[in-house]
Parts: sequence; C-alpha cells; structure tokens
Amino acid sequence: MEKFYLLVALLALGGSCLGDEVNENDTDSGVYSYTTNFFTVPLDHFSFARRETFKIRYLVNDTYWDKKNNGPIFLYTGNEGSVEAFAENTGFMWDIAEEFGAALVFAEHRFYGQSSPPDTLKYKLENSKIRIMGYLTVTQTLADFAKLITAFKEENGAENSPVIAFGGSYGGVLTAWLRMKYPHVVAGGIASSAPFYLGNVPCETYDASLASIFGQNGNGNCVNVIRKSWSYLNHLGKTSKGRKWLTKAWRMCDPIEKDLPANPVKAFCSELQDTDPTNEKQVMRDMFQAINIYMNNSGYATCFDYSDDSMYSTSYSSNDDTAFNYQSCTELIDPECDDGVHDFFEPQTWDFAEFAQQCYDTYHVKPDASRVNLFFGGKDIIAASNIVFSNGLLDPWYAYGVLGNLSDSLIAVIIREGAHHLDLRAANEADPPSVVTARNLEKTMIKQWISQYHENQVKIQNVFAQF
Amino acid sequence: MEKFYLLVALLALGGSCLGDEVNENDTDSGVYSYTTNFFTVPLDHFSFARRETFKIRYLVNDTYWDKKNNGPIFLYTGNEGSVEAFAENTGFMWDIAEEFGAALVFAEHRFYGQSSPPDTLKYKLENSKIRIMGYLTVTQTLADFAKLITAFKEENGAENSPVIAFGGSYGGVLTAWLRMKYPHVVAGGIASSAPFYLGNVPCETYDASLASIFGQNGNGNCVNVIRKSWSYLNHLGKTSKGRKWLTKAWRMCDPIEKDLPANPVKAFCSELQDTDPTNEKQVMRDMFQAINIYMNNSGYATCFDYSDDSMYSTSYSSNDDTAFNYQSCTELIDPECDDGVHDFFEPQTWDFAEFAQQCYDTYHVKPDASRVNLFFGGKDIIAASNIVFSNGLLDPWYAYGVLGNLSDSLIAVIIREGAHHLDLRAANEADPPSVVTARNLEKTMIKQWISQYHENQVKIQNVFAQF
Repeated sequence: MEKFYLLVALLALGGSCLGDEVNENDTDSGVYSYTTNFFTVPLDHFSFARRETFKIRYLVNDTYWDKKNNGPIFLYTGNEGSVEAFAENTGFMWDIAEEFGAALVFAEHRFYGQSSPPDTLKYKLENSKIRIMGYLTVTQTLADFAKLITAFKEENGAENSPVIAFGGSYGGVLTAWLRMKYPHVVAGGIASSAPFYLGNVPCETYDASLASIFGQNGNGNCVNVIRKSWSYLNHLGKTSKGRKWLTKAWRMCDPIEKDLPANPVKAFCSELQDTDPTNEKQVMRDMFQAINIYMNNSGYATCFDYSDDSMYSTSYSSNDDTAFNYQSCTELIDPECDDGVHDFFEPQTWDFAEFAQQCYDTYHVKPDASRVNLFFGGKDIIAASNIVFSNGLLDPWYAYGVLGNLSDSLIAVIIREGAHHLDLRAANEADPPSVVTARNLEKTMIKQWISQYHENQVKIQNVFAQF
Repeated sequence: MEKFYLLVALLALGGSCLGDEVNENDTDSGVYSYTTNFFTVPLDHFSFARRETFKIRYLVNDTYWDKKNNGPIFLYTGNEGSVEAFAENTGFMWDIAEEFGAALVFAEHRFYGQSSPPDTLKYKLENSKIRIMGYLTVTQTLADFAKLITAFKEENGAENSPVIAFGGSYGGVLTAWLRMKYPHVVAGGIASSAPFYLGNVPCETYDASLASIFGQNGNGNCVNVIRKSWSYLNHLGKTSKGRKWLTKAWRMCDPIEKDLPANPVKAFCSELQDTDPTNEKQVMRDMFQAINIYMNNSGYATCFDYSDDSMYSTSYSSNDDTAFNYQSCTELIDPECDDGVHDFFEPQTWDFAEFAQQCYDTYHVKPDASRVNLFFGGKDIIAASNIVFSNGLLDPWYAYGVLGNLSDSLIAVIIREGAHHLDLRAANEADPPSVVTARNLEKTMIKQWISQYHENQVKIQNVFAQF
C-alpha cells in the first residue's frame, strides 16, 4: 500500500522536474546536445582532516558562448537526480543562450547520478567507521558548485564572465543559497519553485495547499473522487482478489502525451470528471490514469515496476532515492501532517520523535532541524541580493516559496497559471501569459545582473588599486 | 638568530593586539569584569560523518544590557589567542556598552586559549589517523560563532536583539567574514585593522609598508639604525664573545610604560634618535630598548626567555602558537619577501614550494592558497553590506586593508594617526583626533544597523505572513 502513497507523494510534487526519462550515456538527447565532463572535488571542503576526493559530473554546451566579449555562464545547480534530467527539463536556459551569448553548464549534485564517491572510497571509509554519506550536505554541495564553476572559468580563460545560476525546486533553493553564500562566484540566480521556507511553515502547509489548488482548479468532482479513493484503496487492499485487481489495473500504463500539460491539475482532474465516486473500481482505474499524467509524461514507460523503489522515475536511481531520504533525515527536514479538513488525506499528525527514530534506525543519523536555518537564515535572507523567486499558483510547493519582494533585488514572481517551475521549461505554444511575463522579467533581471557585474569589477579594481 | 627575527616579526605587527598580559583564571581584570562560560560545538559543522563535540569559551558582561527593549549584543570574534586578551584590549566595546544598552560577549577562537578539543578526543582521533587539527579552519570557526550567539540569544529570550560584531586584526577579518556569511546572525561588523587582502597583495607589501611608515613617522636616524643592525647582528653572532654580549644585553627588560604608546613608531624611533649608526653595541642595545616598547608594553615582564617559543607574549601559549602556524600553513597564507630597497631588511624571495614543503614536514598538510578566496571572495566582497573597515596609517597592516568604500554600507575609515586597531582600544586622553572621529563614525553606523535590523524584522514577517 505504501507504493500508492509514493505515487501520491510524487503527484504532490506537482509534476516533478524529474518526471522525464533520460537514456544514460547519451550526450545528445536529440533536442539538446552537450559534452559530459567530470570535476574532482574534495570529499570534505571544510577541514584538512580528510584528503579523499571524488568526481562530480557536469554537462556543457558552448554553442552560443561569446567568450571573448565576456559572455555569461548559465549554471544549473543540480538537484536530487541525474543531471541530464535537469538539462532536458530546463529549456529556458537553452532558449535564451543565443540571445545572451551564454555558455550552459549543468552541474550534478554530489551523491546523485554519476557523481557519487566510488565504492572503493566508500569501503575504505566504512571500514574506519566514518560513514561517507555524512558528507552529503548542502554546504558541501554548494562548495562543489562554487569550486567547479571557478575552475571552469579559469580553464576557459573566462575570468570576466559573470555566472548566473538557475535551479528548480530543491535546485532552486540551491541556486538561492549559492548566490547568498558565494556572491563573488554567482552574480544572480533564478530560483524557480524553490520550497525556500521548508521547515519554517506549519506541517499542514503542503497538503492544504494541494487540496486548495485542486479545489480551485479542478472540476467539482475531482476532490470528491480523490477523497473516496482512500477508503476504496483500503477496501481493495484487504482481499487477495482486490489486490489482484488493483495490481492488474495499475500496471496498465499506455503513453498519454509527450509533454507535461501546462495546467497539470486540470489535466489530472479531467481524468476524474466523469468518474462516479460511488464506483470503487472506476475510481481506482481513473485515479491511475490521472496519476499517469505525472508519472509518465514522457510517454516512454511501458509499465511500472512496483517492486522497484525507483519505479516512479527512471531518472531516480535507487541510490538517488537513498541519498534524498538521507538528506531528508539530516538537514532537509519537511514536517508533514494532515487534518483531514483542509486537505484530502486521512488525518495524520507529525511526530518528530518517531521520524527521528526512523532516521536513526535507517541511517544512524539524527535529524537536525535547526541546522539549515543556522547556515542560511530561514526566513531572514534580507541581506542577500540578485535572486528571483518564481512560484506557480498551480504548484502546491508555492506555499513554501518567497511570495513577496524582500528588497529591490530579491524579487518574487507569481505565475498565476504555473505548475512546478514551468518558467524554466522550454517555451511552448500552450504557455499561459503569466509564464511568458515571468520569463521576460527574469531575462530583464539577468541583463541587469550582468551589467552590474561588469560595473562592480571596475569598482573593485579601483578600490584595490589604491595601494 | 631566528629569535631576533621573531622579535622583528612581532614588531612588524605594529603592536600586536595580544601584547598585553592577562592572568589566567581571572574573571575580573580589575578594569573589566565578566563571567566565563563554555559552549559545546561540533568538531565538524559541515558533515554528519563526525559526531565529536568540544567546548569553546566565551566571556559575558551584561551590566548595561537593556534586554527587554531588545538592546543589542556586541560580539567580539576572537582571534589567535586567549580571549581575555581581546576582552581587555577592546575597551571601545566597554566604553559604549552603556550608551547602547548592550550585552558584551567575547568568543574564543577554536583551538586557542581554553577552547581546544580535549586530549582524550585528540588521542582518539589521532589513533584513527585523522588529525584533529584539520578541523581548525575559518569556516568551522565562523560556524562556532554563529551557533554560539544564536544559542545565547535563545537562552536569554533575546531573539529580537541585533548582534554587532567587532574584531581587530585577524579577528577583524573574522568579523567581516561572519557578517558576509551569516548576515541573518550578525547585523553589522566593525573590522578594525583587518588584513583583509591577505594573500592577494604582492609579497613585498608588508615590509615595504613598514619601512614607509618608519621613514615617514620616525626621525631621520631611525631607518639607518635599523638597517645597520642586521650586519651588526651577523657580526656579533659570529663570535662566542659577541653572542655572550648579545645574550646579556637583550635580557635586560626593565618596565618601560603601562600602555602602548599612541604613536608606537614615534616611540620606537625615539629610542634610536641619538644612536650612532656606526657604534655596533649602542645600536644593538638601543634596538632592544625600542623593541621592548612592543614586547613588554604592560611592563610586567621581567625578562625574555629566548628558549621559549611563546616568549613574545604570555597571552600566546605554545599551543596557540602551533595553532596559528597551522592556520598559516593551511589557509591563512601570507607570502612575504623583501627587495632590500623598499624595506629595511636583507633581500629575500618568496618560495612557495619551500614553504609548502616546510608545512608538510611539520603538519602533514599542503597549503591551499586559493581556498580562502573561493569561500570569501578575496577582493570581491561587493555584495556584502554593513561592514566598517578601519585602518591606521601607522600600522603596516593597513596595506592589506580595504581602504576605499565599496558601497554605501561597506565603509573604509582611515585613521591617519592610528596604530594597529587603535579605534577598538579604550578611549584615552592621548587619542589623536582621527581615532575619535573614527569611533564616532563607527557608533553612527552601529546605530544605523540596529535601526535597520528592527525595520527588516518587520519586513521579513510581512513577506512571510502572506501565506
């Protein structure tokens, strides 16, 4: 039954940015082409006690890079999965590269995709009872990105090229944090659908936001059908006949469409528009069709393997899954609960002690709920600059986002008809006007940051030259 | 002979902030009173691989703290020595505490004073071949300070009290970096005589600056006598008779005066005013008298123990000395060289390879010259805010300082008649007008930062409350 919750959890991502499948070892997706490279990073950036290194992967496209005129570098700050998926799903960067004369660099997050320390190193460290996974932290990851892009500039003789960061979802949080902590490395950042206030909002936030979006955007029947599905699931799950039926019904996964729909809630609910909430099997069949929109929007999957933890996307390997669970158990803690009233789930409280115990049993770590706020300020990021926080109101994660301007250079952009980081996706004829407006504003800000970067370089040299 | 260079190196500090002696275990210096406290910090803030903790020391005085009206907390970011020395020598904080209704907190730097990991931990880690000293890094130290002051606010129910950081010399660099990396923790900082561009200026900088100051501020004879002293030192050092004479002559260390003179260069050179540069023994005797101004400005020392590495100040323990050497061998690298023309030393080149080899032989570490710039931006700190960089033109370290405004809130203050962080010392009748002006400007900035902090808190809550 837990698998169903997994599906719902993914659904809850509002169309995960990892929803698309990517062939491994393919350096040309047919749509976008890039070279695949590796960069050596220290396992531990913050001490001289450890000396091990490993390699992180990064993809590069320099087709339009106007290097000799200090054309910018657009850096995607990779999140929890293989970096190709982010390269494929961040069409905005590709769309505007020519106009900006920009190089594109997509950096993979440590411990995901092909950027994990080798087994030999793991073995060595496990032997000395230091668990290597302990170096999977946000601060280490940001240092990887800063070091990588600094080295990339040096290697390319591009010291005067400004770097602009881009990221969606968790990658958007990383983009904002990278700008906050390394403003000398990154001139500005587009943090799209970043759940920035994670850990600082009430535990009901996500599911209440989800129900509210479905209530406002779906047809009248949609929330009813979803609510009903829980009791049907319980009922079917109780008998072997019911389980058999469910297994068969949910294996059907015919391709539906290539691209994620512009309004995924509407698309989801359209599958449930004519569903009779009293018809158990119809509800469960139609729910699967609806969920399939999120699960398989590339249309390439032929069936879901329920025994495989990575079933919900081939871009997530089981290693990636473990890595993200580990992060959720250490510093990226997302308390979740339901009251059954503002959401469409059964009531459930948030029990930190139980959660902490599970984390300890699984990974031998204790979650540190105050850690990320200590490093990054939580709600207080007002001293930062040059970040656009964009959020779509069709995305339940928007409720974790920065939704108001904090200063002239910490800008909130609301995309009324936008799902999860829609602004970072490739321009599409079906794009609602609000996302077009958002992308134009982002381009304006990027231009401003680039000008400011060059002005600042002069100012810095002038002050320094007083010696 | 090396000992003499040590003396000169200290002289070169332009009157080290650790020049005063402090009795250990004394929580009341007679001038300033404080409680002594300890705070538990993780050995490693940046991974979940290590779980060891240890305690750092901090001193508190809350005599004037207007806590209920959100009175500020003045935090001294301790540098390379026992924290009492910094508490004693930062009279400015004590002088203005009442006016601001401020609490005073002096935090000790990890691995210095009484803030070292216990031997049991050291032993344990050495056994597993991980050298504990590897966790003596700037990033770990800043995280200590941020965690300490955040916990201090929580414990005292002072969540709405702004923190203003103060630091002199290396402590001033830490103050600036703390504000840069933790602006949500520290509302602003006074970075006094901070050698901020360490590692980014030519290797001649320090000694050329020193010679220039002596040339401009001393009497005409002073530089001549100093230049001559090197050949006399070589000559005397060649014979046992000469060495005997030198040993005896340099042991004489009668008290000279209690406070560091306002213009130490003038005081130094006044000892050499009537010295005959051709008289070997007179030069060496008078040089010692001059150096004694720096070495023993408290007047408490009775003689110098040349066999003890910590001879040059009882505030530096030999552990402290090791710790600072380690930092100089890892990330705080200060290339030094002399051309014999712009300085008053014998020509000497900077050989990084040789330096690196010495570091490796001593501590099994390789200096990483690019590390600090990667983390903190080197010359490019223009995105930061709310920092005053003050520098005195009688202090050779000024040549490493930020000497021009980088923005409206990155302010450079030049103290024409100031020695090493004179502005942080207690007000004194002999203070030159330039330091009085500097302190007033600093007070104005602090007031501005405090107002801004309270305004920002409202703004942050308003944006957050949009949910």
